[in-house]
Amino acid sequence: MASSLSPPEIPMELHAINREKVLNSLRQKLSLSALRLHGFIVLQGGEEQTRYCSDHVDLFRQESYFAYLFGVKEPGFYGAIDIATGDSILFAPRLPADYAVWLGEIKPLSYFKEIYMVTRVFYTDEIAGTLHDLYRDSGKPLLYLLHGLNTDSNQYSKPASFEGIEKFATDLDTLHPILTECRVFKSDLELALIQYANDISSEAHVRVMQNTRPGMKEYQLESMFLHHTYMYGGCRHTSYTCICATGNNSAVLHYGHAAAPNDKILNDGDMALLDMGAEYHFYGSDITCSFPVNGKFTPDQSLIYNAVLQAHDAVISTMKPGVSWIDMHNDTEDMMAERLGAVFMPHGLGHFLGLDTHDPGGYPKGTERVNEPGLRSLRTSRELKEGMVITVEPGCYFIDALLVPAMESPKTSKFFNVEAISRFKSFGGVRIESDVYVTSNGSKNLTSCPRKTYEIEAVMAGAPWPASSASHSAVNGTC
Amino acid sequence: MASSLSPPEIPMELHAINREKVLNSLRQKLSLSALRLHGFIVLQGGEEQTRYCSDHVDLFRQESYFAYLFGVKEPGFYGAIDIATGDSILFAPRLPADYAVWLGEIKPLSYFKEIYMVTRVFYTDEIAGTLHDLYRDSGKPLLYLLHGLNTDSNQYSKPASFEGIEKFATDLDTLHPILTECRVFKSDLELALIQYANDISSEAHVRVMQNTRPGMKEYQLESMFLHHTYMYGGCRHTSYTCICATGNNSAVLHYGHAAAPNDKILNDGDMALLDMGAEYHFYGSDITCSFPVNGKFTPDQSLIYNAVLQAHDAVISTMKPGVSWIDMHNDTEDMMAERLGAVFMPHGLGHFLGLDTHDPGGYPKGTERVNEPGLRSLRTSRELKEGMVITVEPGCYFIDALLVPAMESPKTSKFFNVEAISRFKSFGGVRIESDVYVTSNGSKNLTSCPRKTYEIEAVMAGAPWPASSASHSAVNGTC
Repeated sequence: MASSLSPPEIPMELHAINREKVLNSLRQKLSLSALRLHGFIVLQGGEEQTRYCSDHVDLFRQESYFAYLFGVKEPGFYGAIDIATGDSILFAPRLPADYAVWLGEIKPLSYFKEIYMVTRVFYTDEIAGTLHDLYRDSGKPLLYLLHGLNTDSNQYSKPASFEGIEKFATDLDTLHPILTECRVFKSDLELALIQYANDISSEAHVRVMQNTRPGMKEYQLESMFLHHTYMYGGCRHTSYTCICATGNNSAVLHYGHAAAPNDKILNDGDMALLDMGAEYHFYGSDITCSFPVNGKFTPDQSLIYNAVLQAHDAVISTMKPGVSWIDMHNDTEDMMAERLGAVFMPHGLGHFLGLDTHDPGGYPKGTERVNEPGLRSLRTSRELKEGMVITVEPGCYFIDALLVPAMESPKTSKFFNVEAISRFKSFGGVRIESDVYVTSNGSKNLTSCPRKTYEIEAVMAGAPWPASSASHSAVNGTC
Repeated sequence: MASSLSPPEIPMELHAINREKVLNSLRQKLSLSALRLHGFIVLQGGEEQTRYCSDHVDLFRQESYFAYLFGVKEPGFYGAIDIATGDSILFAPRLPADYAVWLGEIKPLSYFKEIYMVTRVFYTDEIAGTLHDLYRDSGKPLLYLLHGLNTDSNQYSKPASFEGIEKFATDLDTLHPILTECRVFKSDLELALIQYANDISSEAHVRVMQNTRPGMKEYQLESMFLHHTYMYGGCRHTSYTCICATGNNSAVLHYGHAAAPNDKILNDGDMALLDMGAEYHFYGSDITCSFPVNGKFTPDQSLIYNAVLQAHDAVISTMKPGVSWIDMHNDTEDMMAERLGAVFMPHGLGHFLGLDTHDPGGYPKGTERVNEPGLRSLRTSRELKEGMVITVEPGCYFIDALLVPAMESPKTSKFFNVEAISRFKSFGGVRIESDVYVTSNGSKNLTSCPRKTYEIEAVMAGAPWPASSASHSAVNGTC
């Protein structure tokens, strides 16, 4: 059988629950500040983009905050929530008559009301009028707009803008931290989608392992992954561009982009580092597998791999509410390279995952990045709490750009065994990455790939996976 | 064997030839206007884009005019051609040191000089200084920048912009029409890439036909196409979002986008209309196959299909230099529906194809769109000339949004046999699209899919394709 999975029904009530959560959180905040519970949350959805001056339309993917609240897959929408009543309102673009000829049936507003489970739907040219009509208070109606910093990109979200907005009072500060914080804690329905994205992606990683051979091109591994997750999983988007790095390329953390496009030939003896995750109904996965392309680990490959796996497993078994992510990162560095971790692992231990691969909320107001090697790359410094989904992705890389200066510096050269390191000069790197959900008293690994060297070798030699009929996801902590 | 093809070497001299052609054309134009042959052609390449406020980087694809002249796959470049000397100059972004850790080796300028076959390479922060130094004349150096209308998108190309540009004289009018006109006529090397994109895409269409079954989802056909062209053809990009329309959806000309995402189940009895083309080193293909998803044409399906095929074949056999594309479009309408073509075929007969799917140059200055149903959708009104690559894509669609008003209008209702048409109410549509090169005395079809109903039925029943060992591409006209 090509796959044991099939795409699940999309639960649109997920977004109704998200709206409820944000609304409650905002109301609480307003109450605490002795402010009136009135006005509207207003978000603008994404627009289709064309490529430069041409009419080439890039495949549209909804903006994530808008997707969180409304789940709308079509471009050109706005959405609002009435803070007084809790009603949700979508605004759909008014499509020209020839849309029906070129792009498809023009759906009535009632269609969107039904599938997106909102209270009302109007056209986008009716936003100002509608919100004025619905406002039950005196004075300019108040709009809570989304404006705030994404701490991974250092870019600000663009607040909604529409014709007539000057007739409203706007608040740009309140909504972003509240909405971002809601996104950090996943509901059961959100978790189920992330689990599904993990299931289909884990299975696809296994298929890729089973079909990898020296002599292939790196992009062929990408193609197999994409095909499995789309053909059998219904995943049209990936969470990020596939990283299919072999040999020395596996020391390049974000390999695979246009300037380094997965185009090397796999050599016998290479390690592969495949960082690939599919997305389903906006919710993603982020999984890395590392394995020898010929299916058999050498002793040196086992040595590095097992050190990383030990860190990976140790972190997951320690994860539970109350644990500090900075401490876990430091422990990992300790384990892996006696305090020189930032040379061998220049990225952070992991990041939140959800509608975005680097899901927001890592540094809420008042928290700061620690400006030290290793720690400054951490995408969050928070204490773990139940409901977070976070990646655990220790790695060990032999990166000339870092190793050579560190070995030459009088301060650090004494820590390096130059002879031993020279053996790994073109080794590249190993990363093992799983997506982990923090439970009330432990954690649950959502990813289900073969991890032990003997498991990987067995799968690559043709053994089935999962190896037994046991559940593929391990839960730690008492249930 | 999975494929008879493998990705060809990329001929970088293709872009040197393109530069030479544009330079000669510009020099000729300047000479005719008694202007001095000095100054620089300056183009700005594309930049990577992130998704909204997040750090999600979309896979970069170079801007097509820049790709035409320089063939550079990396983002952030500028390029120049010295009109006096013919020297070509690339400007590469100066990458920060940690690029080596995250994104890959920082290549020396000599690397880009060699692979892109240019005279010199500098950093982008050196543009103004370099061009000043290289200018051998008095006064402000003159820059010819790219600024002009894309007649498909109605958008203007963005002229290059860099720090210090105010110290130059700029010309925004001369370059665009010259460069666009050069792109209309394909060199042998360009043609070879378009042929390759056609070969791998034709083969992928055949694989999809062979594996299509009622009960599948439309996107599974897309996934099979993408996998074949990437896995075996090395094509990471498609020319456009795949249109995988079955049943009634095949009457939606540009189905397959985010709001109509190829998600219907294939029903026994449906026709499929698959419009999919891969791109290789920026050069694309654009191919449509129509076939019954169960592998056997009904008499009604044959009737419509053969009418379209007859038009497709008739156009290709008539194509040669000097033929008017408007006349061919009108002839096609005549053949297909006795002057009611615009109801049954609301799109144009075809468009130029190259670095863009709708390649520019369809309406050079001085030519106008004909504002009549059918003709107003034509993407070019030009006479055919040797070296053009143009799609031939007649279609016949049963589109309620067009048919209902036409059947109700007193002016046109007499032309319709309401009873016959009602039989086709949920038929959808048929399109047959090939990419055709205009030779010195005829044309060459670059596309090699099964076209006759018996060929399609045989392939879908498991027969090999191409059926014989004969060359798959037909040339018409005397050789």
